[in-house]
Amino acid sequence: MQRLLNDPDRVVDDMLDGFLRVHAESVQRCDENPRVITRTSAAQPPGKVGLVTGGGSGHEPAFLGYLGEGMLDAVAVGEVFSSPTANAFLAAIRAADQGQGVACLFGNYAGDSMNVQMAIAMAEDEHRRVRIVKARDDIASAPHQDAEKRHGIAGGVFMLKTAGALAQQGGTLEQVIQLADKTAQRTRSICVGLSPCVIPAVGKPNFTIAPGTYEFGIGHHGEAGQRVAPLENAQDIARQMVDALREDFGLQAEKGAFAMMVSGLGTTPLMEQYLMAGHIVDELTGHGAQVWRLYVGDYVTSLDMNGLCLTLLLLDDELKRFLTLPAAPLGLGLGLASL
Amino acid sequence: MQRLLNDPDRVVDDMLDGFLRVHAESVQRCDENPRVITRTSAAQPPGKVGLVTGGGSGHEPAFLGYLGEGMLDAVAVGEVFSSPTANAFLAAIRAADQGQGVACLFGNYAGDSMNVQMAIAMAEDEHRRVRIVKARDDIASAPHQDAEKRHGIAGGVFMLKTAGALAQQGGTLEQVIQLADKTAQRTRSICVGLSPCVIPAVGKPNFTIAPGTYEFGIGHHGEAGQRVAPLENAQDIARQMVDALREDFGLQAEKGAFAMMVSGLGTTPLMEQYLMAGHIVDELTGHGAQVWRLYVGDYVTSLDMNGLCLTLLLLDDELKRFLTLPAAPLGLGLGLASL
Repeated sequence: MQRLLNDPDRVVDDMLDGFLRVHAESVQRCDENPRVITRTSAAQPPGKVGLVTGGGSGHEPAFLGYLGEGMLDAVAVGEVFSSPTANAFLAAIRAADQGQGVACLFGNYAGDSMNVQMAIAMAEDEHRRVRIVKARDDIASAPHQDAEKRHGIAGGVFMLKTAGALAQQGGTLEQVIQLADKTAQRTRSICVGLSPCVIPAVGKPNFTIAPGTYEFGIGHHGEAGQRVAPLENAQDIARQMVDALREDFGLQAEKGAFAMMVSGLGTTPLMEQYLMAGHIVDELTGHGAQVWRLYVGDYVTSLDMNGLCLTLLLLDDELKRFLTLPAAPLGLGLGLASL
Repeated sequence: MQRLLNDPDRVVDDMLDGFLRVHAESVQRCDENPRVITRTSAAQPPGKVGLVTGGGSGHEPAFLGYLGEGMLDAVAVGEVFSSPTANAFLAAIRAADQGQGVACLFGNYAGDSMNVQMAIAMAEDEHRRVRIVKARDDIASAPHQDAEKRHGIAGGVFMLKTAGALAQQGGTLEQVIQLADKTAQRTRSICVGLSPCVIPAVGKPNFTIAPGTYEFGIGHHGEAGQRVAPLENAQDIARQMVDALREDFGLQAEKGAFAMMVSGLGTTPLMEQYLMAGHIVDELTGHGAQVWRLYVGDYVTSLDMNGLCLTLLLLDDELKRFLTLPAAPLGLGLGLASL
């Protein structure tokens, strides 16, 4: 394991220390729980619906990087690939609650769901209003008829964006939740994995991908995909990814307008992400779809996994509007608003 | 080699095809030379000094990603880790020339320097005014007394930013060049490498880094560093990087204000970049320096190399001003201005 680490068991704490130093003007550690990072009160506009997420570490820039204007107010931070505790979710909810209620938007995994439910029960004892929406975009994680069981992967970013923009504009909790849920319902993703990843505290891969092959439909923690296939032609892989999403959206959707995100899973060179994005756009437009907006880069990663996540969001006018409103996710764009 | 490729010999063309599709509204391929990408005339404000760069591919998001408002107008694109041709530099200069002259800002390497000189000779035959500044921030590539021979690495981004902002504001060619050169003079970088990288058309690493070791002072193409050492403690590596830069800046500078950039070299998890950034900030502030602004992320990469580049820019009021003026580098921040 060639890694820049101190004590591998403390990697999340060390990362948070660094994150807080880099973004000292915008975020702070929650007094109540060291595994909760919030926007500073100076950075947070008063009187809005609070936006909270949480999840395991190892997906950077998710989720910390989506703190900022027009996006998240507080993040509960778990160990690598592990849910934050219920207490951490509760502390994040408390920190984000300005009396207008809190939208807790997170990826659908058993651990996160359980801890969020416990946190909400505690928050409701304090007379707080908390509503949730789970991202469930990974079409490989459950069949179409069980779509509500699917895991949330990179596509969850779209829901943070649209709901965050509406909250910023003064939307009510009910409106924010409705928009988040609509976004989540219309978001589908499929991943390919070319290499496993190494959890620092483990020190070796917890699954394998044989050289010369790739795994179609792999999850963000190495969850087994739909099939293993020879790693040959990139254009062919792009076509298979698009076909899988087209089939899942159904024919009625495929002439629609989409937001398209190609997210590297960690160690995928940007060169290859652009190469794949070009093929994917060609495939989609060849089938009559309109690619209305494109995002290419490392949006949600899986430590040092090599691979790609393709996400499509089927747009309507409302989603287009909230997708394009300004946002300043502080750990994304890498401070480049001002570079 | 686990890679998303078609024909490895065509990877640069395939990448450009994708880049042009993703950023179709903002950039176009130059009619005169397919290896030159320019801002569309609609995107380019009239009557300003043109800003051009060029270099080998494999460093994405550099250099294409720095096209955009307040930064570059045209980029000459080379093969992987190879200089663009003289003709490509010439075409980029022509495309960016609006009669106010062209600043050609690039990294100091023999191939690029030779081709730029040939391009300038041809451009001057056409009565164009072209001036150059070379980034020369890699302190490991030549000793202090030969600072002008040093290679340009990630720190070159700072020069593109300050000079780009001044050009955008209507600065003259002489003013833009002066600011670029001042920025370059005050920028120093040091890299550590934890793994080699694989050029797609070669298919295997062209150098090795033994597991359990890292190379201190490695270059952006695997140029040999100053020493190989056991890979142990990240905090210790951070201290060594800061010490090397402190020594090179000299004691008189070390109480100054710096812009600090931590750039991943390709496959370095953001988690580790933040961890290292935290230690680096602590080291710098512990020595009395002021870290005025921080940038963390993959700014200039080396394909799939694992490692980090630390850059410091010693600031003054003028540099602070131009560093913070708005810019919209289109392939950086990943379209996130509007996400």
